[in-house]
Amino acid sequence: VGERERPSAELLSIGSELLLGETVDTNAAFLGRELARLGLPLTGVQQLPDDRAVLARAFAAARTRSDVVLATGGLGPTHDDLSREGLADALGEELREDASLRARLEERFRAFGRMPSSNLRQALLVPSAEPLDNPIGSAPGWWVDRDEAVTALMPGVPSEMRLMWAEQVRPHLERRFPLAPLAIRTVKAFGIGESAAAERLGNVLSNPPDGIDAGIYARDDGIHVRFTTTGDAALLEPLVVRARTALGEDAYGTDAHDLATTALAALGRAGAETLATWEADTAGALLAILASAEPADGAARFVGGMLDAGGAAAAPVADAVLQLSLLPQDANGRSRVRVSLAGRATIPMTELRIHGSGPQRLRRAAFAALDLLRRKL
Amino acid sequence: VGERERPSAELLSIGSELLLGETVDTNAAFLGRELARLGLPLTGVQQLPDDRAVLARAFAAARTRSDVVLATGGLGPTHDDLSREGLADALGEELREDASLRARLEERFRAFGRMPSSNLRQALLVPSAEPLDNPIGSAPGWWVDRDEAVTALMPGVPSEMRLMWAEQVRPHLERRFPLAPLAIRTVKAFGIGESAAAERLGNVLSNPPDGIDAGIYARDDGIHVRFTTTGDAALLEPLVVRARTALGEDAYGTDAHDLATTALAALGRAGAETLATWEADTAGALLAILASAEPADGAARFVGGMLDAGGAAAAPVADAVLQLSLLPQDANGRSRVRVSLAGRATIPMTELRIHGSGPQRLRRAAFAALDLLRRKL
Repeated sequence: VGERERPSAELLSIGSELLLGETVDTNAAFLGRELARLGLPLTGVQQLPDDRAVLARAFAAARTRSDVVLATGGLGPTHDDLSREGLADALGEELREDASLRARLEERFRAFGRMPSSNLRQALLVPSAEPLDNPIGSAPGWWVDRDEAVTALMPGVPSEMRLMWAEQVRPHLERRFPLAPLAIRTVKAFGIGESAAAERLGNVLSNPPDGIDAGIYARDDGIHVRFTTTGDAALLEPLVVRARTALGEDAYGTDAHDLATTALAALGRAGAETLATWEADTAGALLAILASAEPADGAARFVGGMLDAGGAAAAPVADAVLQLSLLPQDANGRSRVRVSLAGRATIPMTELRIHGSGPQRLRRAAFAALDLLRRKL
Repeated sequence: VGERERPSAELLSIGSELLLGETVDTNAAFLGRELARLGLPLTGVQQLPDDRAVLARAFAAARTRSDVVLATGGLGPTHDDLSREGLADALGEELREDASLRARLEERFRAFGRMPSSNLRQALLVPSAEPLDNPIGSAPGWWVDRDEAVTALMPGVPSEMRLMWAEQVRPHLERRFPLAPLAIRTVKAFGIGESAAAERLGNVLSNPPDGIDAGIYARDDGIHVRFTTTGDAALLEPLVVRARTALGEDAYGTDAHDLATTALAALGRAGAETLATWEADTAGALLAILASAEPADGAARFVGGMLDAGGAAAAPVADAVLQLSLLPQDANGRSRVRVSLAGRATIPMTELRIHGSGPQRLRRAAFAALDLLRRKL
């Protein structure tokens, strides 16, 4: 394992509720993004049931294959939570109660009243494991560095996992391995298809300079063109400029820029300090996107929105009101939206084609309205 | 394989974008739910990269372990889409262009102009594969039934996968295997913790009748108590009644009932036909939940909502206005919300404790407000 050039990592997502589809595994996507940026990209993810023997085999096999094995979930207090047992079996070590972990658990529960005896399972440790503190939950994590393979157990609750990752597991990994972090730049465009964008980009996409990877992805908020390198991040800048130029006015931003903040900034420049919305037949897709937009200096502020027939009665008070309605699908399953803006900034009623189906179609409708704002103001 | 009593299933989620965290694997949760109900629960899920050799090994190993191997993704037209190649290698069969698949692809592209030559890869098939029609996309699926193991390839685009699953893969599986579908009943409660709920439920949860499984899960919208059986669904009804009784007024519904529709129904009974909201510091969590609530006869209709300071100026016109504000966290990281209802139905200002952190805390705040409506009206 120690002789490979670049350390390899895999993830075990533990919990029968994942396999039953009761929970969507957002932890895997979060850790996938983080590990890619750290220069330790995931080679595989497995979702596994709460079954001690299955977990023991999975930990043992993963520790043979990969330098780093991360696991989330199965650290709760109930008899279903078997990640500790599974890893202990894979290591051939015995679980023992750790006095300082027990003291910390009892301290934590003092504020809430008596500690249920089942929580004592969370004070168990094997000799080669170092505990990872969980400041916002009862489940401590484990860090095991043995036989040139590292294994980390983290809680399944996303907020607890993310904090433990950022404060403990990631710094541990950075100290333990020589890592070449991945620099990532993204150019985003709306109103152009994936293959048309690829044609316009030409060599920038199909034949980037040595040491740089380029890719193109279709998303609800448009096309994302992504450049990555484990080398000097500054090498990506000329590619970003070329991509923006090639995509012309379809390009709306880079990296963390999103369509909502881009549209709100355009409104601000056009003299509107506040925006309200009135949407029909989109199940509040526009509301949901605007409500979570980050506020920015000089940009219009989203103050709320009305749905369907409600908008006629409510007449929201804002400098500008954006109206969106989804029109019925045509015989070929294609959809159009009708968009207009009234108030201190105006856009006459415009019909736009949108792609996709299901909930995706509703989000695309909302993004098409936001795209029209940033283009026309 | 044929001798096992109950067929086993596993899923391969294919695409490097999953491992990089660019895409959250919602397909796995959807198929997990569907397969559990079908009586063919998943024993494992793997996320795999777009790597022909890795995929070939994964397909071969999965076909040895499991009666049914489902795969999503990797059926697009580009050179990164290698699910066809991976499965062909695992089967030891050769890919050949299928004349009728090619004709169908050309027909599909006629409406859009010329077909890019790369799409011809989507007309490839191996001799033992039967194509699965994709009425809303260019990627056909595959159904392979060989050596007593079934493998199905489906597209990664969720809407295409769901349609192909419902119209083709699921019916194929139902014909192919003797399946005992799983009946599921859920009782939902808000305002009670997981362990307190478990204590109140006692034997109903810890010792259900033979052939029935019981479980308890903490969700943003409260506690879900879940009873399942592969036997007679009617056997679950007395357990649902006992659980509702044990949970008392904390129980708010069963199965598909959710807090938003329950609260809107209570408002309707209290004489309000329309509801608007005004929320502060919750990033529109209440809006997002209410906007996607299903309309129901006699229930109030959500007409829209205002955010933060915007609410003061906007004064939405509705029979009832629900106000929610998230208060700052205390020294122990605990949060409270302030909730009130004004208009044709009223609830005086009430402060409530909420649990959780991050985005979860915002959703919990919104659900706490909806819970107050259904309790107090």
